[in-house]
Amino acid sequence: MSRIVMKFGGTSVADLDRIRNVARRVARAAAAGHEVAVVVSAMSGVTNQLVGWCQALSPLHDAREYDAVVATGEQVTAGLVAIALQELGVEARSWQGWQIPLLTDGAHGRARIDRIDGAALIARMQNGQVPVIAGFQGLGPDHRVTTLGRGGSDTSAVELAAAIGADRCDIYTDVDGIYTTDPRIVPKARRLPRIAYEEMLELASVGAKVLQTRSVELAMKERVRVQVLSSFAEAEGCDLPGSLVVDEDEILEKEIVAGIAYSRDEAKMTVKRVPDRPGIAAAIFGPLSEAGINVDMIVQNVSDDGTTDMTFTLGRSDLARARQTLAAQQGQIGFADLVSDAQVAKISVVGVGMRSHAGVAATMFRTLAERSINIQVISTSEIKVSVLIGADYTELAVRALHTAYGLDAA
Amino acid sequence: MSRIVMKFGGTSVADLDRIRNVARRVARAAAAGHEVAVVVSAMSGVTNQLVGWCQALSPLHDAREYDAVVATGEQVTAGLVAIALQELGVEARSWQGWQIPLLTDGAHGRARIDRIDGAALIARMQNGQVPVIAGFQGLGPDHRVTTLGRGGSDTSAVELAAAIGADRCDIYTDVDGIYTTDPRIVPKARRLPRIAYEEMLELASVGAKVLQTRSVELAMKERVRVQVLSSFAEAEGCDLPGSLVVDEDEILEKEIVAGIAYSRDEAKMTVKRVPDRPGIAAAIFGPLSEAGINVDMIVQNVSDDGTTDMTFTLGRSDLARARQTLAAQQGQIGFADLVSDAQVAKISVVGVGMRSHAGVAATMFRTLAERSINIQVISTSEIKVSVLIGADYTELAVRALHTAYGLDAA
Repeated sequence: MSRIVMKFGGTSVADLDRIRNVARRVARAAAAGHEVAVVVSAMSGVTNQLVGWCQALSPLHDAREYDAVVATGEQVTAGLVAIALQELGVEARSWQGWQIPLLTDGAHGRARIDRIDGAALIARMQNGQVPVIAGFQGLGPDHRVTTLGRGGSDTSAVELAAAIGADRCDIYTDVDGIYTTDPRIVPKARRLPRIAYEEMLELASVGAKVLQTRSVELAMKERVRVQVLSSFAEAEGCDLPGSLVVDEDEILEKEIVAGIAYSRDEAKMTVKRVPDRPGIAAAIFGPLSEAGINVDMIVQNVSDDGTTDMTFTLGRSDLARARQTLAAQQGQIGFADLVSDAQVAKISVVGVGMRSHAGVAATMFRTLAERSINIQVISTSEIKVSVLIGADYTELAVRALHTAYGLDAA
Repeated sequence: MSRIVMKFGGTSVADLDRIRNVARRVARAAAAGHEVAVVVSAMSGVTNQLVGWCQALSPLHDAREYDAVVATGEQVTAGLVAIALQELGVEARSWQGWQIPLLTDGAHGRARIDRIDGAALIARMQNGQVPVIAGFQGLGPDHRVTTLGRGGSDTSAVELAAAIGADRCDIYTDVDGIYTTDPRIVPKARRLPRIAYEEMLELASVGAKVLQTRSVELAMKERVRVQVLSSFAEAEGCDLPGSLVVDEDEILEKEIVAGIAYSRDEAKMTVKRVPDRPGIAAAIFGPLSEAGINVDMIVQNVSDDGTTDMTFTLGRSDLARARQTLAAQQGQIGFADLVSDAQVAKISVVGVGMRSHAGVAATMFRTLAERSINIQVISTSEIKVSVLIGADYTELAVRALHTAYGLDAA
């Protein structure tokens, strides 16, 4: 007997049949004697439609009204799942953010959870009731509905699991776990039975879109064991095993490299011939930061004539705005030219085993060199090595690295 | 400078263009210096879709979850209208039932408003903000969302107008006022500039579907002046005049007959040869009432052999259930047969002037007799005469009566 949070994403509740399927799975867990709380997203497509309406009416719409509109998607699903559960004889009740209450800060559209009062939910669960909670939403200090930003239902689920002291937070989605890399590129990719929080965090942030980054950070901080599993596949009336995201110590057979991630949403920009003087980095990246543009890898070339080239990567969709921002500062910064390239991809090798094993980066560079893939930028962290390469080489690089690190399935 | 509630129904907010149109009208009223509160319905079609989902998942769904799901339609519209108003430079803010709070009883799915705390809304209106309120919903004593039943947004608007002491409650709809009868049947029907609460109540309950009956009752009780007007028609940037529903004393030139209403949703049932003894009416109508079947007109024939025929009218959709209910009681009641007819219509002549003018009923009977229309059942009240006739004669009867009472437009 455990206390479990079960979270279902948009594709898992996309229509009435899938909602019935969700109810069946929840009923099964309840019948097995578990105390279950459910967190749901909006039916897939609904949030996009609501967001589209807000934008069409006003490109610079008020975030408080945006939240009031967009949060309704999850409320509909929560009510429908509660009804479907009741139809199966399971006592269930829907909860909106303001009812729990799930208190957030006042940052409408991208709020952070401050506190969840789990007492009422726990009391009901102990009496055999299944609370069905509208994800992605909370109550702000202004007594208005807030939303947590896209993908926020994962965060709701993990925070809820921490608040009610759940043994596990199961994230049901349209994939059946975390893979060593994208199986669409590498058919031999393997599902990872277990993955460490830190690894998941790096994989999430570099393009494996299974879990929202923020929810993994939270799970790590609150030590919530998260399981990613499929809401579609099942065998003989049982869930198929997924991937468990847990503390590093819970992983006995550690691989040196857990997975290979890639991101095509990257662009590279070089600020040519800037004066090589103290404060120049601040002069370039200060205005970008003020414009809300996130910069990722940064490389500064060695100079010999008193000027240098500064290269950095950023999200492809920010490229035009970054160019505009820097061009407006050309006088103050004093650069000769801006050169950008959107045809780049970032490939990352991730694994907590790197901490104790040397040679991971060397293997990466050698493997890419053997395929004549030119590395444009390199960055490393304790458990990750990332390189920027030409976008055309993405699949070739991912496949070669997957083999090189011994990740291919037998 | 007045304080006005403006209520917009589902067809008036059916898409983004219409929502912009609503915002334009509200902005115009605000610019004219009025203090304005807005009440909105769900975009047309949305409520039906949400209701349909609940029913598909569980025919006997929980009313609390139904309310949680269905109330979202109005929340979306309230947020979108607030955004559209802000885009026009009008300070606006959406309000859900629990935020005001608009407190109801606990009758989920058909709740009644207990109390609206208008203080916060008035304060904001006095500071130039336009509150946009999700109609049709409130907060129950169980701290859960309630809905007021179909058409409840009119009721929300009238109650709100009373709570904030509004000078007028404007109900914008897809018709431009209350007519002497249905213009689709009588092209010469005239818009009534003013109509008394009592008249509107009779017209609303007999088939003129412009205002929900409950909202008119409330308006009469709270003495809220209600204006019905078109959300589509306008002339030179101004609203066209609609119909004002007011106290009888505010109508100077009273017509004897204000309008002719009809309803085709009627059926007639005769219980043949029941024993003519005390308590027989209770034996028949008690079980029907317990089954939730509303009976309207009742006629008992004179008997001479110790038995009598009892005829009554009821909603057509209740016919099968009524037959079942009475058949199950045949032993106790002791009737010979049940005869029913769904091919009937109720025609009503309504007007507060009847109180002081005799001969209204006589004119009705003579007019119908001249067209050879047989009257099956008659019922009268202080300000109404209703007759049941064959459904095929509906249009003929309405047209003839409209002319007979001098209601035709010049």
